Amino acid sequence: MPAIAYLECVRCHHHVSAVTPQTLCPLCAGSLYVRYDMDELKRTARRDEIVPRAAASGASLGMWRYANVLPSGTPEKPVQPVTLGEGWTPILRSKRYPGLFIKEEGANPTGTFKARGLGLAVTMAKHYGLQHLAVPSAGNAAGALAAYAAAAGIAAHIFMPQDVPFANYLEGIVYGADVTMVNGLISDCARMVGENIKAQKDANTPANEVWFDISTLKEPFRVEGKKTMGYELVEQLGWTYPDAVFYPTGGGVGLIGMWKAFEEMEQLGWVTGKRPRMYALQATGCAPVARAYDEGKDASEFFQNAATFAAGLRVPKPYGDAIILDIVRQSGGEAIASTDEDILKSILDWAKHEGIFLSPEGAAATAAYDALLASGDLKPTDKVVLFNTGAGLKYTDMTAEAMHLRRPGTLPTRMPVGGIITPQ
Amino acid sequence: MPAIAYLECVRCHHHVSAVTPQTLCPLCAGSLYVRYDMDELKRTARRDEIVPRAAASGASLGMWRYANVLPSGTPEKPVQPVTLGEGWTPILRSKRYPGLFIKEEGANPTGTFKARGLGLAVTMAKHYGLQHLAVPSAGNAAGALAAYAAAAGIAAHIFMPQDVPFANYLEGIVYGADVTMVNGLISDCARMVGENIKAQKDANTPANEVWFDISTLKEPFRVEGKKTMGYELVEQLGWTYPDAVFYPTGGGVGLIGMWKAFEEMEQLGWVTGKRPRMYALQATGCAPVARAYDEGKDASEFFQNAATFAAGLRVPKPYGDAIILDIVRQSGGEAIASTDEDILKSILDWAKHEGIFLSPEGAAATAAYDALLASGDLKPTDKVVLFNTGAGLKYTDMTAEAMHLRRPGTLPTRMPVGGIITPQ
Ligand SMILES: [Zn+2]
Ligand SMILES: [Zn+2]
Repeated sequence: MPAIAYLECVRCHHHVSAVTPQTLCPLCAGSLYVRYDMDELKRTARRDEIVPRAAASGASLGMWRYANVLPSGTPEKPVQPVTLGEGWTPILRSKRYPGLFIKEEGANPTGTFKARGLGLAVTMAKHYGLQHLAVPSAGNAAGALAAYAAAAGIAAHIFMPQDVPFANYLEGIVYGADVTMVNGLISDCARMVGENIKAQKDANTPANEVWFDISTLKEPFRVEGKKTMGYELVEQLGWTYPDAVFYPTGGGVGLIGMWKAFEEMEQLGWVTGKRPRMYALQATGCAPVARAYDEGKDASEFFQNAATFAAGLRVPKPYGDAIILDIVRQSGGEAIASTDEDILKSILDWAKHEGIFLSPEGAAATAAYDALLASGDLKPTDKVVLFNTGAGLKYTDMTAEAMHLRRPGTLPTRMPVGGIITPQ
Repeated sequence: MPAIAYLECVRCHHHVSAVTPQTLCPLCAGSLYVRYDMDELKRTARRDEIVPRAAASGASLGMWRYANVLPSGTPEKPVQPVTLGEGWTPILRSKRYPGLFIKEEGANPTGTFKARGLGLAVTMAKHYGLQHLAVPSAGNAAGALAAYAAAAGIAAHIFMPQDVPFANYLEGIVYGADVTMVNGLISDCARMVGENIKAQKDANTPANEVWFDISTLKEPFRVEGKKTMGYELVEQLGWTYPDAVFYPTGGGVGLIGMWKAFEEMEQLGWVTGKRPRMYALQATGCAPVARAYDEGKDASEFFQNAATFAAGLRVPKPYGDAIILDIVRQSGGEAIASTDEDILKSILDWAKHEGIFLSPEGAAATAAYDALLASGDLKPTDKVVLFNTGAGLKYTDMTAEAMHLRRPGTLPTRMPVGGIITPQ
């Protein structure tokens, strides 16, 4: 495992030391990426070490099969992974489209890809000795933080919209997190996290009691964990690129992380050839990136009145919007929004014909795939990896509601307005 | 992959051909096991083929990494796996008990270990050309059958108690199965499946339209799929046995399948040494096996008024009770029942201290483990593999209800009495 050489601002390329925990670039508030000494890594990190390492460790290595491209700490203080078995998820062949693969991220702990980013971010938080982690979340990041913080013995403070899927609320409670349900969106939750931290600092709270903001792209390690999706899809395709990657885009950090992985793998000589076209998929009820893409803009605007049952896509202005748009355009991909109606249709279509129960976010990707097949922009033989970012089972209430599959008072509904319910 | 030599009755050892689909022993109605030519297998099946085979195929091989000990069909008509990525689930080290491992079966498709048995049973049903599969289920087998039948293009007819976790009901609907919710227990569901099939035969229904009963232990392949749990835990422990295996026991087929795996692995020379003590874990609200064990009986009696929020354990008289009791005793294990109160406590304890959200069934195992630690019958250093048979997220409604975590009409409750609700 490599030491971190430095953290690099994605915007102004300023270098910051990783010896102490960092949030944003001190010069321009850009996101920080983890950088290694690539010359050393080229000499030491080989892709043919991966299978023997995983075989020697049983199945539980998960994303840590890529330990040779993840932070190691120092010989005196090595990084100790906080792991729940995240990563190394199945890649499934579609039964209908010969070129299509589904990357099944629902197989992760807590049922979503968020486990990768928070697995690594909590690992590093523990390494740094942080004791309080806070996050605003559309739901699944909160559940994942709660789980990994519990595993690490760190306090988690989570802020979610009150109408997240019930599973997200229950995760927070069960894992013992400090849960705040917010009558608002993830953007309101983010503001509340910031206000709390500011108030703590203003009150001269002891440093180890001040919350650390572990928001997406506001610290370097969530991207670093999510990059393992890029390594995995390339390894699972025999160290080759597909023609295209379809990624449901709320915060969009999975897409950003994969792009970083491709860059690293090329430098290491692990993969060659043309990078895949990157497709960012959204819901018409919250489509800031798709709108900016259509309008030819470099960044998104805050999406008013965001509403979609694809809860993970309700991010009205992703922090990494400019990076996402740049990757989508550079790669020759597209940003596409589908209606909730088409998303629901796609859930039912994939369940009935492929035996896969997609999350609404994953079905935003399948719906767009179907549309591009229909328009002739894609062929069924094009080699496409489509990410199902979470288990359909985590959205039983949202999906049942979208299907009108309920009787008042008897079937799952959303969380009530007005704060937290605690176990009796 | 080996051809099936014959099917063997576990009770009277009668041999039956596997050329056509079989249910029970025609002589004594005992369960049929799949048998291979072990002399040939000893020459051809090597455990060191497994890692290279899996590496060559990406992550999606799952339990099919053990293809060399699973049915192959014939050269003219090879078995084509119907797979959704089941198996090869993580084995996690406990953060508190140095000898304890959690086998995380919640990472399977449909969120439970049932995917293994039904993955193989549906594969073989497709191989045989069956077109209608029926199953009585405590919930999770129904969901798994619905998924694999959808993937295979076969009709699924599922019968569940009306008060199963909501997720099980939704799975049935989403995957397009023929769902019947029954005001009763799995034993009533089993009776209804049998009655339907009898009525179809009495009415001279064409053979390809008569349902095939894919109940646990009433056909040979669900055990055969579940045996892969035994292969996996031994491979993941470096081809060695643990001291003990803790298995939540509803139908108990996982435990039966693992025992078959141990026998095969010993014959193949893949593992040596003392087999693990097998612990069968139940809930006091439905503990037929634990009661029979305590009373020194060879078989269980129907457990009256079965009631526990561990839905998968509500099996009042498992079909394989005699086999389970024999394995438990032979191995020096025990059958233990825990109260719902202790099961819920254990869910919260494991979530808060290990970051793992257990199913109620899995928590029946952790609760028993805790009790045996407390009594001194187990040491924290004893090497124990404890199966979490399903994802806690699949039981949000049951667990929330057990926690009294609800407001009437706002939080998930059980299914209403009185039949199926269909999407509008
Ligand atoms: Zn900067
Ligand atoms: Zn017999």
